[in-house]
Amino acid sequence: MTRRAWMLRRYPKHGLRDGLCLEAVPDQVPGVGELLVQVVYVSVDPGQRTWIRKEGSYMAPLPLGTPMPGSVMGRVLVSRDDAFQPGDVVTGMGQWADRCVVPAGGMRRVFLAAGIDPLAHMSVLGATGWTAYVGVVKIGRPKAGETVVVSAAAGAVGSVAGQIAGNLGCRVIGIAGSDYKCDWLGNTLGFDAAVNYRNRDWGEQLEALCPDGIDFYFENVGGTIGQVVYPLMALGGRIALCGLVSSYEADVCTPLDLSEVLMKRVRVEGFNVTDYLHQASEMTGTLGRWLADGRLRYHVETIDGLEQCADALASLLRPGSSHRGKLLVRVTPGDLAVHDDRPNV
Amino acid sequence: MTRRAWMLRRYPKHGLRDGLCLEAVPDQVPGVGELLVQVVYVSVDPGQRTWIRKEGSYMAPLPLGTPMPGSVMGRVLVSRDDAFQPGDVVTGMGQWADRCVVPAGGMRRVFLAAGIDPLAHMSVLGATGWTAYVGVVKIGRPKAGETVVVSAAAGAVGSVAGQIAGNLGCRVIGIAGSDYKCDWLGNTLGFDAAVNYRNRDWGEQLEALCPDGIDFYFENVGGTIGQVVYPLMALGGRIALCGLVSSYEADVCTPLDLSEVLMKRVRVEGFNVTDYLHQASEMTGTLGRWLADGRLRYHVETIDGLEQCADALASLLRPGSSHRGKLLVRVTPGDLAVHDDRPNV
Repeated sequence: MTRRAWMLRRYPKHGLRDGLCLEAVPDQVPGVGELLVQVVYVSVDPGQRTWIRKEGSYMAPLPLGTPMPGSVMGRVLVSRDDAFQPGDVVTGMGQWADRCVVPAGGMRRVFLAAGIDPLAHMSVLGATGWTAYVGVVKIGRPKAGETVVVSAAAGAVGSVAGQIAGNLGCRVIGIAGSDYKCDWLGNTLGFDAAVNYRNRDWGEQLEALCPDGIDFYFENVGGTIGQVVYPLMALGGRIALCGLVSSYEADVCTPLDLSEVLMKRVRVEGFNVTDYLHQASEMTGTLGRWLADGRLRYHVETIDGLEQCADALASLLRPGSSHRGKLLVRVTPGDLAVHDDRPNV
Repeated sequence: MTRRAWMLRRYPKHGLRDGLCLEAVPDQVPGVGELLVQVVYVSVDPGQRTWIRKEGSYMAPLPLGTPMPGSVMGRVLVSRDDAFQPGDVVTGMGQWADRCVVPAGGMRRVFLAAGIDPLAHMSVLGATGWTAYVGVVKIGRPKAGETVVVSAAAGAVGSVAGQIAGNLGCRVIGIAGSDYKCDWLGNTLGFDAAVNYRNRDWGEQLEALCPDGIDFYFENVGGTIGQVVYPLMALGGRIALCGLVSSYEADVCTPLDLSEVLMKRVRVEGFNVTDYLHQASEMTGTLGRWLADGRLRYHVETIDGLEQCADALASLLRPGSSHRGKLLVRVTPGDLAVHDDRPNV
C-alpha cells in the first residue's frame, strides 16, 4: 500500500518545487499511542517556508527525506489510543499527505455540531486564531483607545488580530495589498481604516491616520513595509513580531534601527504560538465567545487537490496574494461537507 | 552678579565645544518653590549627548541659549521652599554651572553621615544605579543561572548592572575596552568573565563563554559591538536597551536583524530611568542594602574644574575611554570633603 505525501528532497532555493516533491511513498502503520488519519484538509501557512530552510527557522531544519509537516484536519482510520475512535474528526500537526500517522497526544478531537463550521478549528479557533490572540493579548497588550496597526491585515492571522484589538477598544488600521482587501477590512471586519501599500503615498496615508504615533504594531511582513511603519511608533510603543513573510522566500533582511527603539522606549518581541499551546483552551474560549457574539469574523478559502500544496504556499509568500483569510487545501473531497455551509465572510 | 554656566549656542556637529560654551551669565534669583544651589559636583553621562542633538533624543531637544542640564550635588545657598534650609546638601537635576536655580521638587536632600560617601548618591544610589536596576530587574528580569552579558561593563551603569545580575544568581560576562578594565571587572567587581573588545578574536571569546547563548544582554553601546553580540542571543533572550553610546557622537547606526528576533523569540526593550523615578526609594533601598552587605561596589572618578565638563563628556563618548565607573566634575573645591575617604574600588 502506498500513500501520497510531499517529501522534502532538497532545501529549496528557487521556488518551493525545487525541493518539495509529491511522491507515492509506503503507507505508515500506527504504533501504540498513534493514529492513522485520513487527511481531509491541510493548512498552508507562510511560516512553513522557514521549516524547510537550512537555517534561520524557529525550529530545527526539517531533515531531508522527511514528509512536509503541516496542520491537518481529518478522520481517524485506525486508532491505537484509547481517547480516539475510528471515524473521529481530529485536528493537529500532521503532514501534507492524503494519509498520515500522528501521535495521538498532538491531536484534538473536533465535535461537529449543526451551525458550527469545522473549518473554524483550522483557522480562528486553531493555531491561526491563537497566534493572533497571543500577539495582541499576551505580547502587545494594547489598552482601549490606543492606535493599533496590523500588516498583512487581510491574511489569516492579521484579520483576526485586528478584530481582537478592536474588541479591546483600540483604533485599528490595517495594511493590505489591494483596495478590495482594504474595503473588506473596513466594511466587513470593522477595521477603523486600511491602507493599500501599493499606493505610492501609503506611508503618508498611514502617518496621517496615526497623528500620535502607533502604540502597537502587529508585524507579519517586515521588509520594506516594516521600514515605513517602524519610524511611526509612539513613545512606549510595542511591536509584536509574528512573522516576516517578505523574507521567507526572498533573501530580504529586515533591519530595525535601535536608536528609535531606545529613544522611544519601544518594546519589540518575537513570539511563536507553540510556546503558548498550554493556554489553548483559554484562548479558544475567548475567541469562541466573540465568534458566537458576532464580534469576530473569519474567512476561509479552499483549493482542491493535494498536488496544489506547494503552489498554494508559494502564492502566500508572494506580495499581493489574492487570498484573504485562511488558505486550506482540500485533500479528500466529499467529507466534512458542512464546510459549504460555513458563515464565511 | 554673574555665574559661570555652559550654554548651548549651536547643536554641536564637530565635537562638543562646537556648540557648548562656558560663559559668564547673569545670576539667577530663586522664586517661590525654588532653590539657589552652590554646585559642588556635576555628573557627566553619555546620554547627555543626545539632549543637545537637533533630533533623535528621548527628550525634546534643548533650546539654543539654554544652560546645559545635568545631575548635580551641591549646597543650598538660598531656599524658597519649606523643605530645605541654606546649607543643606542636595542632589538632582541642575546645570553645568557653579551656581544654579532649581525647582525644589526635583531635589533630594543628602544626609552626610560618617562612613557614607556622599558621592554614592551621585552614582550607585542615584540615577546611575537606578538605571542599572531598571534595566536588569524591571526589563531583563534574568533568572538565577542565566547567562548575562553587559557592554560598557566598566562604565558607571554597566559596572552596577553586572553586579546586580550577579546578585540575582546569574553568570555575568562583561565587555570592556582594556585588559585593565577586564581585570577590574573580574577581580574586584566579581564578574564571572570579561572580554576586551580590542582583541581581534573577542567575538569568538564571547561565543565560547556563552555556549548556550546569551539569555540577557544589557546594551549600552550598540554599533559594531552590538552586531557581534545580537546573533549570540539564546532562545527567549532579552535585550535591555539602555544606551547606544557608539552612535551619540558619530553618525553610527545600530541595526538589529528582526529575523533573529523572530526566530529566537527575543524581547528587545528600550528604557529610560526617568519613567521609573517614582520607584526610586524602592531601588535605593535594595541597592543600599547590597552596598552595606558588601555585595555591590562602585567607583567614582573626579576631574577638577567646571571648564572640564565638555571634554569630560567627550572622553566618555570616545571608544576606549580610560575612565572606569562614574565620572564627576568637581566644580567647587574644598566642600563635601568626605569624598576623599570614600570606599572607592
